[in-house]
Amino acid sequence: MSVEEAGGFPVERFLFALALILITSKVFGELAERIKQPAVLGELVAGVVLGGSMLAVVPSLPGQAGYETFHLIAEVGVAILLFEIGLETNLRDLIRVGFNATLVAVVGVAIPFAAGFLSVLAFEKFGLLGNINPAFTTLVAITAGATLTATSVGITARVLSDMNRLQTEEARIVLGAAVIDDILGLIILAIVSGLIQAAKQGVHEGLNIAGVGIIALKAFGFLFVAIVVGNLLSKRLFDLINKMRVRGVLVLSALSFALIFAYIAKLVGLAPIVGAFTAGLVLARTNQFKIIETQLKPVADVFTPVFFIMVGAAVDVHVFNPFEPRNVPILLIALVLFVVAIAGKFVSGWVVFKEGIRKSVIGIGMIPRGEVGLIFANMGLSSGVFSSQLFSAVTVMVMLTTFVAPPLLKVAFSREEAAEGEVTEEVKP
Amino acid sequence: MSVEEAGGFPVERFLFALALILITSKVFGELAERIKQPAVLGELVAGVVLGGSMLAVVPSLPGQAGYETFHLIAEVGVAILLFEIGLETNLRDLIRVGFNATLVAVVGVAIPFAAGFLSVLAFEKFGLLGNINPAFTTLVAITAGATLTATSVGITARVLSDMNRLQTEEARIVLGAAVIDDILGLIILAIVSGLIQAAKQGVHEGLNIAGVGIIALKAFGFLFVAIVVGNLLSKRLFDLINKMRVRGVLVLSALSFALIFAYIAKLVGLAPIVGAFTAGLVLARTNQFKIIETQLKPVADVFTPVFFIMVGAAVDVHVFNPFEPRNVPILLIALVLFVVAIAGKFVSGWVVFKEGIRKSVIGIGMIPRGEVGLIFANMGLSSGVFSSQLFSAVTVMVMLTTFVAPPLLKVAFSREEAAEGEVTEEVKP
Repeated sequence: MSVEEAGGFPVERFLFALALILITSKVFGELAERIKQPAVLGELVAGVVLGGSMLAVVPSLPGQAGYETFHLIAEVGVAILLFEIGLETNLRDLIRVGFNATLVAVVGVAIPFAAGFLSVLAFEKFGLLGNINPAFTTLVAITAGATLTATSVGITARVLSDMNRLQTEEARIVLGAAVIDDILGLIILAIVSGLIQAAKQGVHEGLNIAGVGIIALKAFGFLFVAIVVGNLLSKRLFDLINKMRVRGVLVLSALSFALIFAYIAKLVGLAPIVGAFTAGLVLARTNQFKIIETQLKPVADVFTPVFFIMVGAAVDVHVFNPFEPRNVPILLIALVLFVVAIAGKFVSGWVVFKEGIRKSVIGIGMIPRGEVGLIFANMGLSSGVFSSQLFSAVTVMVMLTTFVAPPLLKVAFSREEAAEGEVTEEVKP
Repeated sequence: MSVEEAGGFPVERFLFALALILITSKVFGELAERIKQPAVLGELVAGVVLGGSMLAVVPSLPGQAGYETFHLIAEVGVAILLFEIGLETNLRDLIRVGFNATLVAVVGVAIPFAAGFLSVLAFEKFGLLGNINPAFTTLVAITAGATLTATSVGITARVLSDMNRLQTEEARIVLGAAVIDDILGLIILAIVSGLIQAAKQGVHEGLNIAGVGIIALKAFGFLFVAIVVGNLLSKRLFDLINKMRVRGVLVLSALSFALIFAYIAKLVGLAPIVGAFTAGLVLARTNQFKIIETQLKPVADVFTPVFFIMVGAAVDVHVFNPFEPRNVPILLIALVLFVVAIAGKFVSGWVVFKEGIRKSVIGIGMIPRGEVGLIFANMGLSSGVFSSQLFSAVTVMVMLTTFVAPPLLKVAFSREEAAEGEVTEEVKP
């Protein structure tokens, strides 16, 4: 028996919420598959249902009781997912597509940025932005453009994994491009936050090029060192660990390895998932990687749904009500940004110089903005550059890109495969 | 890239802390086994090292940043552990030892309570309790006695599981007694908190017997309904679930089942672990229980160390410094309570009327007080019945019982087995 309560979020509510997360994500995932959609789409919808604007089983806003706990578990969940994806990815194949991946990433950052920038200037002309200081218009447009540059690879990776398509050339290019995109995003973030800082203080100092350079160097340095040193040590390390006697030592060591890589990635400014993915790439070359992969699966099954549920839970369904007058400009802006966001990433697939590549798969794979786009939006809001209207619109855009990518990706694969006469088959793991 | 922070506890710190929890608990567990001690003892020590009074990697006090998250994960961890134990326990065997288990539980509650009660009266005589209102002495003694009655089965279950001794008659009696002990604890809690309430309000109304009766009824009712209804439905339910196509659906359904049982147990006032254990008993009879058990193992390996680390982390090592004058009475009281706590539970093993039962194993198995004893202590402190000195002493007693049980249990098994000429062998899972 136990009468204590855990801070703000009681133990029993947590146990119940966790059970509901696991059950609804599986039920909705199953329903999604039955109507030929990726399971992850069902999980996202399950998140919307459990989230604050519907059942409120799961806290969906920072500051709500228990939010921190679910958020942290979700972060571990998506890190484990990318770790798994890394384990299934061959480093050499990834390096081989490096040039094309870089091209995709650069184009997929440049075009959405330019299109988003111009859209916001147009919104301002039509008075959709409401009251904003005209001196700030350029800054608003730059920040909004930046929210369109990010790629959140979690959704795409999950769909590719569910469809057993991780070993395709397209999957490799998307994964590689996502890693490079993260570094580009880091640089853009440094520049934009520097610009905001300068504008707020009224100083017009030039951009700190050296500072931006150091940030980029740290990010590339991490990837390089992690892969080189990781490859040198991991094989021997895991042969040693394999000699230990205590229960579960192998999978726990592998998981810790991934968590530490995620931690270091975050320290140098990259997303934790980039670190976890790198850890997976490195451990894919150990002698124990098959056992690790098998034992990691149930752990991932428990943690990763929390991530997708939390992404869905962040959606405020009330914003989509067009009969609420103040939603109209938000939805209009969101719709335009959404089209721009999709088109901008979609074209990035066409810069790949290679025969037989399904360019639409790559373009669509880069579409989801996920939590990375939200970070930019939050920066815009908290610095006062975004009005709450523009912030809502950007959030809606991010959500739409996240929800639209899985079904589009499935269609892109199926259509091209049907054309090639391949068999589209799903394998139950 | 990501710049946001999760409320008070940054994502990267969480990733790092989680990695350290997994690594140190395995390393210390391995070291413990090398010196012929149970791995869980090593994990507890790892918790002390990571806790607030040493490295402070893990928050160890309610209210500290991130504490809630670790606490909630720990609760899930111990629930999963007891769920696993339940899966390996045969319900019929458990019911067969029911009479002896009840005897053990009742004696293991009555003797420590009486001994604790008398000890506190003696402390008062010798002036060890400091300034307390003499009108409250009886109440203080009752509350202190209550802290000695609880049995926290997590530690013992883990040791038995690590030693592959869950299928022994002794293990069954200890598990059964722990469940009954939890119900007794619930009743005692209701009585004691009623007495405190009455004393604080100055009213001398009689004990609400009906209220206490309802509490007991609810607890027994839950166990009865959960087992009967669970047995009727679970087989068909899991045959149905097994037909679903999405990844990991079986282990997630089983885990959700356990979490929901834990939730309901908490609602009726029992410990979540009692609910999780019951869920395990029920699912042990499904056709899929072997797959569930195998796939659950890595999940348990990730979650349960968090529990043992948090138990260890709660230890404030500074209290053990005898050169600090104000620690002297605390340590004296703690030492006496500790001896009483051990002796009181130890004798409970001798009431089992059965040939060939290792009575010392049962007695020792009931010793750890764990978090259940701390709940009573917290109630004593927050209601003003305990001085902070007495609270510290009780906390130290609880910690000592938790740390001393694993090695004692191992000795008890080994000695009796050596006497019987059995082979003591550890199997690596």
